[in-house]
Amino acid sequence: MGGSAIPRLDGAKGTYLRNCWYVAGWADELAQQPQMRVFLETPVALYRDSAGVARAIGGRCPHRFAPLGAGRVEGDLLVCPYHGLGFAADGRCARNPHLGDPPPDAAVPAYPLVERHALLWIWMGEAAKADPATIPDFAWLTDPRWDAVRGSTVAEGHYELYSDNILDLAHVNFVHPALAADAFTLGERRFWQDGERVHSLYLRDNDRISLGIGALLGTGDKLQDFRGEVVWHAPATLYFDFRSGDPGTPPEDMTLLPSLHAFTPETPDTTHYVWASARDFAVGDAEFSAAMRGALQHAFEHEDMPMIRDSHRLMAGAEFWSLKPLVLSGDGGGVRARRQLRRMIAAEQGNAEEKPA
Amino acid sequence: MGGSAIPRLDGAKGTYLRNCWYVAGWADELAQQPQMRVFLETPVALYRDSAGVARAIGGRCPHRFAPLGAGRVEGDLLVCPYHGLGFAADGRCARNPHLGDPPPDAAVPAYPLVERHALLWIWMGEAAKADPATIPDFAWLTDPRWDAVRGSTVAEGHYELYSDNILDLAHVNFVHPALAADAFTLGERRFWQDGERVHSLYLRDNDRISLGIGALLGTGDKLQDFRGEVVWHAPATLYFDFRSGDPGTPPEDMTLLPSLHAFTPETPDTTHYVWASARDFAVGDAEFSAAMRGALQHAFEHEDMPMIRDSHRLMAGAEFWSLKPLVLSGDGGGVRARRQLRRMIAAEQGNAEEKPA
Amino acid sequence: MGGSAIPRLDGAKGTYLRNCWYVAGWADELAQQPQMRVFLETPVALYRDSAGVARAIGGRCPHRFAPLGAGRVEGDLLVCPYHGLGFAADGRCARNPHLGDPPPDAAVPAYPLVERHALLWIWMGEAAKADPATIPDFAWLTDPRWDAVRGSTVAEGHYELYSDNILDLAHVNFVHPALAADAFTLGERRFWQDGERVHSLYLRDNDRISLGIGALLGTGDKLQDFRGEVVWHAPATLYFDFRSGDPGTPPEDMTLLPSLHAFTPETPDTTHYVWASARDFAVGDAEFSAAMRGALQHAFEHEDMPMIRDSHRLMAGAEFWSLKPLVLSGDGGGVRARRQLRRMIAAEQGNAEEKPA
Repeated sequence: MGGSAIPRLDGAKGTYLRNCWYVAGWADELAQQPQMRVFLETPVALYRDSAGVARAIGGRCPHRFAPLGAGRVEGDLLVCPYHGLGFAADGRCARNPHLGDPPPDAAVPAYPLVERHALLWIWMGEAAKADPATIPDFAWLTDPRWDAVRGSTVAEGHYELYSDNILDLAHVNFVHPALAADAFTLGERRFWQDGERVHSLYLRDNDRISLGIGALLGTGDKLQDFRGEVVWHAPATLYFDFRSGDPGTPPEDMTLLPSLHAFTPETPDTTHYVWASARDFAVGDAEFSAAMRGALQHAFEHEDMPMIRDSHRLMAGAEFWSLKPLVLSGDGGGVRARRQLRRMIAAEQGNAEEKPA
Repeated sequence: MGGSAIPRLDGAKGTYLRNCWYVAGWADELAQQPQMRVFLETPVALYRDSAGVARAIGGRCPHRFAPLGAGRVEGDLLVCPYHGLGFAADGRCARNPHLGDPPPDAAVPAYPLVERHALLWIWMGEAAKADPATIPDFAWLTDPRWDAVRGSTVAEGHYELYSDNILDLAHVNFVHPALAADAFTLGERRFWQDGERVHSLYLRDNDRISLGIGALLGTGDKLQDFRGEVVWHAPATLYFDFRSGDPGTPPEDMTLLPSLHAFTPETPDTTHYVWASARDFAVGDAEFSAAMRGALQHAFEHEDMPMIRDSHRLMAGAEFWSLKPLVLSGDGGGVRARRQLRRMIAAEQGNAEEKPA
Repeated sequence: MGGSAIPRLDGAKGTYLRNCWYVAGWADELAQQPQMRVFLETPVALYRDSAGVARAIGGRCPHRFAPLGAGRVEGDLLVCPYHGLGFAADGRCARNPHLGDPPPDAAVPAYPLVERHALLWIWMGEAAKADPATIPDFAWLTDPRWDAVRGSTVAEGHYELYSDNILDLAHVNFVHPALAADAFTLGERRFWQDGERVHSLYLRDNDRISLGIGALLGTGDKLQDFRGEVVWHAPATLYFDFRSGDPGTPPEDMTLLPSLHAFTPETPDTTHYVWASARDFAVGDAEFSAAMRGALQHAFEHEDMPMIRDSHRLMAGAEFWSLKPLVLSGDGGGVRARRQLRRMIAAEQGNAEEKPA
């Protein structure tokens, strides 16, 4: 009785930041066929209108609760797959195919959706506050100088555990043997907050940078300087700026491997994981891309995800801080991000001018 | 750890009409081997006694709670598969194979069970009120002039969502492309109540009646008059009288395709779906039957069931009316049936002379 | 999203006897690779230190709740698979590989673990009370005169249902057709308590002892005397002493087939089932062992386990006695064991000097 894109939604409810941009998926994967998704325990239908503009509206038909994201687009309307009610981009029911009835005075929520840098960004809060200027910059995803590999999946575990994982690169040496380097355990680390963003910086000069990266960059076993910076954007979109070069190379002249790790909560137990990593060499080399994509997908899906799934299960539904986690030096990024997110959620709930649907 | 016919029964409990007939399955599928079922969250064992009479008793042994429906019949007794206690058709323990002990003073409930029109009908309420005369008439299922195809399955979703689906044929044009016809969206509709029964009537003259039906009836693309009547019997047994003919043909001379759609709740989240459809042409043509059965099974299991499963999941365990569903003109049947069933359940619970087990 | 050794742990909590020995698994299956287990809803990591000594510590890292049992051993430390913290056998964090930080002042519980008679025995309560002298004697498991076949699995159903099953051999005739014998239903039975142990004794002279056992022992259809004694050790470790011989043979001269059935609760719904059975003939005959093991595994996994799984599901989460089970003469062992276990749990909870983690 599986096969549905819709998880069970009866359980306890999480608390989410709503006035912010979440990654809703890859723009080019949303084509003719609408998509049914659950974000923040809320059903959402994604589709493109007749002009090709990506749209997001509530995914549950107000008539009989059918999944609108399993419907089809006719003109500018998203048509319910169950009884054919048509919904406009503002969420209003604009067509009733039955007996010429006028469309009923009904609507689903409309969510601001922006297509930028190959991604779809959705705003699950008050539409009036949705400012596309606050979308994090991932211009390299569509810059022809960069060749990006990418993926997406639904991962078991709370989305903040996934953010923590990226902010604390120390895990690399234990979870990803092919990527292990002293940089992650013995290198210099700096953690700081910059407005609403949180940074984790890892520095290591004149050392090996891991078998996998050495092979990718063609530097093999040579000693390199390394600089890795993770930038967290609330609630859970992360940029990882990995760069290295011959000893003494200034950062701006190093080889850069930019990465995206975007986590959008589906439920308190499941997370949409959207990732990409790019290079500015071997651009257009499909074989190179396939190998790079395969290695990263293996690392994320078969090394990170089982670890976080099991950690999540071992938390047994408890709130993170209630378990009194041991805080290590490497947690400087993750702890800042968790605290910042809690502040933002508290502020939003205290000041909400209107409750989003 | 799957493979059991017994769903998890720990969750919240539904409220059911008990003094009524539910379809328990196809009579000829109950043979030598007893069956273990859950109806209305209640375990039931179905079996045939030595005279071949179909019987239903409580499915949970009072000794160690083993599934009696997984047992075997010896003489007139249903023997527990775990320790061999034998139960008679009145539910009393009539045999104890251990050490010659007398049978213990114990019993499981006995449920009135009637074999009629190829179906087994079970009464889950007060036995004294079980009147077989109130079983809906599906004589065509055993009438040799009719050749019926049929099936049964366990479907995810609340049983009333399945009733709604049949009473509102408007869904056909969106869910079943091969069966789509203007009749279902633009034709005349009438909804009414008749005692405890509810009717949905669809009328359309001089129009196409769908690719699938045209192929089935051999009328192809010809214009036809159409009359489709759904009759709901509480709590969830429906008869669909589909008939069509050349323009001007009176209903009694049209070609009739009678159908059964019976829904028996297993749990609040799962439903036993028993269906059949018959014709009085090509009778005995096995190839025709196989094609007809395949087409219907596909429609029910791969088109209706996923839609209702997803609608059910999107309701997230909420009571139907609490979600303030939009009511369209096509819901005249479903709304009447829901209200009638609520009245009957309220009346039964107010007046129950004895609590059924 | 399966594939994890960790069950969901969010549900209602059971009540367990803690100051006692539970079987944690087969000693030789714990080798280089640590094991992640859940006993009594508590995560446990099993591993061997540099001297090969089997150890058990809490399975959830206090840093980020990762599964320690999925880690690796380095020297005498169990190293967390997520960030590399190393834990000593006393549970204390003894290594922090990051930046040369001293190990944090943190620890996981340490559980007394004893390797004896090919089994690992774990004590989930107060360590000071763990006396290996109280481990039940299964010396035949490592005695070269005996050739033992064995297995282990995770079984659905409450562990006390599994104990009941062994203590009441009457089930054999209904659940295991190949092992059925009058001894189990018509033979003499005696049940008694001996300190904290409970005994079920089955006696039958001059009768057939079942097709399966006759084939195993080579006695075929010959009439035999039979003596079967089950000894229950709290909370759920059972010894089954099965012996038979030509009529008139004193018990000490009969052919003995000793068996172990150890049940360790994983959750209220799942049980670790560890079993073995041995013979002192055809010792070293691998083909004989394979056939014997296959027959027993089939009986336990495909005959007992489905019956108990379904009985467990039909109990729908209710406490055993609240369902007012019918008590038959054959339940004399199971009822004594349940009462004794309840007394021991009540005593432990009343007198606990310190709460175990």
